Amino acid sequence: MRTISPLQKARSKYEPKLPNALKGNVKVVEGNPTHSVDDQEEIKQLFPNTYGLPTIAFEKGDAPLHTKPINVGVILSGGQAPGGHNVIAGIFDGIKKINKESRLYGFLMGPAGLIDHKYMEITSEIMDEYRNTGGFDIIGSGRTKLETEEQFDKGLIILRKLDIQALVIIGGDDSNTNACVLAEYYKKINAGVQVLGCPKTIDGDLKNEQIESSFGFDTATKVYSELIGNIQRDCNSARKYWHFIKLMGRSASHIALECALQTQPNICIVSEEVLAKEQSLDDIVTYIAQIVADRAKEGLNFGTVLIPEGLIEFIPAMNALIAELNDLLAHEGDAFAKLNKEAQREFVIDRLSAENSKVFKSLPEDVARQLTLDRDPHGNVQVSLIETEKLLAEMVKEKLKEWKAEGKYVGKFSIQRHFFGYEGRCAAPSNFDADYCYSLGYNAAQLIAAGKTGYMSSIRNTTRPAAEWKAGGIPITMMMNMERRHGSMKPVIRKALVELEGKPFKTFEQYRDKWAHETCFVYPGPIQYFGPSEVCDQPTETLRLEQE
Amino acid sequence: MRTISPLQKARSKYEPKLPNALKGNVKVVEGNPTHSVDDQEEIKQLFPNTYGLPTIAFEKGDAPLHTKPINVGVILSGGQAPGGHNVIAGIFDGIKKINKESRLYGFLMGPAGLIDHKYMEITSEIMDEYRNTGGFDIIGSGRTKLETEEQFDKGLIILRKLDIQALVIIGGDDSNTNACVLAEYYKKINAGVQVLGCPKTIDGDLKNEQIESSFGFDTATKVYSELIGNIQRDCNSARKYWHFIKLMGRSASHIALECALQTQPNICIVSEEVLAKEQSLDDIVTYIAQIVADRAKEGLNFGTVLIPEGLIEFIPAMNALIAELNDLLAHEGDAFAKLNKEAQREFVIDRLSAENSKVFKSLPEDVARQLTLDRDPHGNVQVSLIETEKLLAEMVKEKLKEWKAEGKYVGKFSIQRHFFGYEGRCAAPSNFDADYCYSLGYNAAQLIAAGKTGYMSSIRNTTRPAAEWKAGGIPITMMMNMERRHGSMKPVIRKALVELEGKPFKTFEQYRDKWAHETCFVYPGPIQYFGPSEVCDQPTETLRLEQE
Repeated sequence: MRTISPLQKARSKYEPKLPNALKGNVKVVEGNPTHSVDDQEEIKQLFPNTYGLPTIAFEKGDAPLHTKPINVGVILSGGQAPGGHNVIAGIFDGIKKINKESRLYGFLMGPAGLIDHKYMEITSEIMDEYRNTGGFDIIGSGRTKLETEEQFDKGLIILRKLDIQALVIIGGDDSNTNACVLAEYYKKINAGVQVLGCPKTIDGDLKNEQIESSFGFDTATKVYSELIGNIQRDCNSARKYWHFIKLMGRSASHIALECALQTQPNICIVSEEVLAKEQSLDDIVTYIAQIVADRAKEGLNFGTVLIPEGLIEFIPAMNALIAELNDLLAHEGDAFAKLNKEAQREFVIDRLSAENSKVFKSLPEDVARQLTLDRDPHGNVQVSLIETEKLLAEMVKEKLKEWKAEGKYVGKFSIQRHFFGYEGRCAAPSNFDADYCYSLGYNAAQLIAAGKTGYMSSIRNTTRPAAEWKAGGIPITMMMNMERRHGSMKPVIRKALVELEGKPFKTFEQYRDKWAHETCFVYPGPIQYFGPSEVCDQPTETLRLEQE
Repeated sequence: MRTISPLQKARSKYEPKLPNALKGNVKVVEGNPTHSVDDQEEIKQLFPNTYGLPTIAFEKGDAPLHTKPINVGVILSGGQAPGGHNVIAGIFDGIKKINKESRLYGFLMGPAGLIDHKYMEITSEIMDEYRNTGGFDIIGSGRTKLETEEQFDKGLIILRKLDIQALVIIGGDDSNTNACVLAEYYKKINAGVQVLGCPKTIDGDLKNEQIESSFGFDTATKVYSELIGNIQRDCNSARKYWHFIKLMGRSASHIALECALQTQPNICIVSEEVLAKEQSLDDIVTYIAQIVADRAKEGLNFGTVLIPEGLIEFIPAMNALIAELNDLLAHEGDAFAKLNKEAQREFVIDRLSAENSKVFKSLPEDVARQLTLDRDPHGNVQVSLIETEKLLAEMVKEKLKEWKAEGKYVGKFSIQRHFFGYEGRCAAPSNFDADYCYSLGYNAAQLIAAGKTGYMSSIRNTTRPAAEWKAGGIPITMMMNMERRHGSMKPVIRKALVELEGKPFKTFEQYRDKWAHETCFVYPGPIQYFGPSEVCDQPTETLRLEQE
């Protein structure tokens, strides 16, 4: 029996690259005071202690910022992303460098570990097992939200018991928002605990003027692109299937767009464009069917379609339907649950508004049914469970059948469906993510040494070699605005959707018609850890185009 | 816009390794006359001209076997497998080495290209674009079966027109059987065309005393194991899902077993064991549910289950049901087709035998329905379309619900489903497959130079470094026996199923209980082409254990 794979063993020896600025002693260079991206007055009122802080850059310094031991706690929050273990390794090495008596504690299974006092010390032996590996299994992750003062006070008990001076929360936009709320609270009550955030999510939607990318996006999109490329090679060899491929990524379409730029599929739907153009489901189906029909004329009865996970929510008509369904079932869910399958369908159709009822009836029956089942703890449709790839494939098939009857289409249309998500969230980090994550963690240790709180660890200039990366900290309040969440206005980090005027989308837009009608598939192959730099060290196309 | 990926560009420079025996001039060392594995009399009668030939080994020789130009045709037959392009590159380089005026013609889209005279010359420029790449897109593949003398005669017209002296058919067991039938026919009529086979299939079921493995199995199982490993790391981080993962591989369970040996999942079903133990669907469901329940007791509400694609056909009760359904719908399909969904279900239930009707009714409704739809051109259930991973997951869920009601199970059971097939068939070949395929092709060129027909290209000793591999040819008739196909006895190459007494299964059997109850996941990571040899050059566990 094996314990670890040969690759994992070889990869454990990889030494992640650090920016030159972080290699020796650092000094803190403060920028100007900052403002939130919007709603400055509200944010300032909500964060009197952490608002308006200056940005921070680290430069080479003459003396250490701090020399006494520091105990630090770390939390992994939310969905897995490749490189989480390297963030922890960076923090570990960073605080040990400050003083080898420093200790790192990991709270188990996400923020709940802090509240419930479930933790472990991350020793050197444990840390070494996890360097450069994928997954969050060193301490586990979880989705409990740190939101209430009661939670914060409970957490403070264990933080004090372990003499922890700083807490690093590794998470997405919501988790970083909550990190800032916690930083503000601990500052307010003079708890003596700094709180810092690290930008994590494969979805790529935590980025802005200050943060170039969230970690994990690079690796996850490379894994998905490997698979899409392999499927495209198969598609181009067998020349008989249309592959409908749904890609994880929640709301934003960054993952689908990045994969499209890497693999050049025949079709990629971008949710943000669907919303901007107020497309209906039928518009999307017609768009796909038209390309299928065009290719069929050339004898090309095969192709690939990339579909972002969050698409449904961006179709105004579907969104309206889902909103009314959520509302209906919140109020009449018990009555609904007592009915049989057929009666449930009628129940829903009868109660929906005329417009939404029409949309509901236009859907394939099993998809319509799915919208009424499988609800999350808040009673909402779990969009990730909707088999959008099946929905679109079936509706395209129906459309082509109509066109065939009308003599507008001649061809064969056979479908294969795929959904990629879990395949990429825990892959071993690419060189980029291994370096970026380690740097984010090591940098967080410097922010701790500098006594900062309410900051997000920031590594920039990342399309350049790691030595030239810029390290520092960004006040989390700087990224905030007020948004409606669950019915009330909250301070949140603005989620980054695909910019239709941005270079990545514009590039896609420039070529997509060519990709649709010709066959321009690119086959990226699997992530390489040991080969030539042009193979192993390339950033994502999104990052490259954005930073160009 | 890109044309090829950086990895593909870098990989195109890889020079596949050849056995020492093939590096210079070779001499032919003939073994003893051979016999078919069974039914010697029948096979001998059917193949009077190609039966009983000696095995051939190539050793270093003093002079070339042949020096005049040779024109060769090549056909890719059946499903894609990583390395097909390298077989062609090996043939190309082999015949150019004999004489640089030799020409290689590729017949397009499978055996149909030969019959319909669709072909292209594979020039040096074209060949170089495809070296070390995945896919069969250089000339395409297809599933037309070469079986009738009419087809053979049509093919001969174009073979003669192009002055082709030898045809290499790259395919699985059926395609190699047909290659031998064709070799026999061309020999009988003195057509002057040699026919040779190369053992291809990711399924791993074309192997025997003479053939150690079919090409593509190594790469495909490594891709699937990468994905399973990534999912397992996610599973072990989130600790909240059971992942049901179906794996391609048609009848035999070699792929699932190999992936299990590489990744150490909690559960792997092996069809051949199900058949040997005459397990029912309920037995399998109970087996899985019991492990889920056992793990739940330890707080481990997560895990992985590998399921071979062909499972359903190996469950005697399901097999009986499918056979009766095939028969029923062959005779009453028209009447069935006219009914609505509910009536179709009743129609089937009423007409099936009592036993099969009971099994049919025990299935989740949508799966039962699937069995009556989506039939192949012969009217048979398309087993690959049955969502076995969904079937098992749903039935396990039902079972656990019962157990929970009875107080025998406490836990949470949330499911994720996956099916991997197209992700691996066209991956760029691993170093092993790149070398093995190139050697198979280069070796085929030597068999051609030696004037042989009715042989399969054979490269053995493949767990050793490539330099030590043994090269030669095996008379295809040697692997044959008589089997019933579509109602009549045919000479066929015996398909290799998983041997329950073989070392790979025995090893799995030894550890599976430990893997089920503990969490011993291994994360193989993606195929590496450039790293240390212990990472890049390992054969499959199956091959290693079989050859040990």
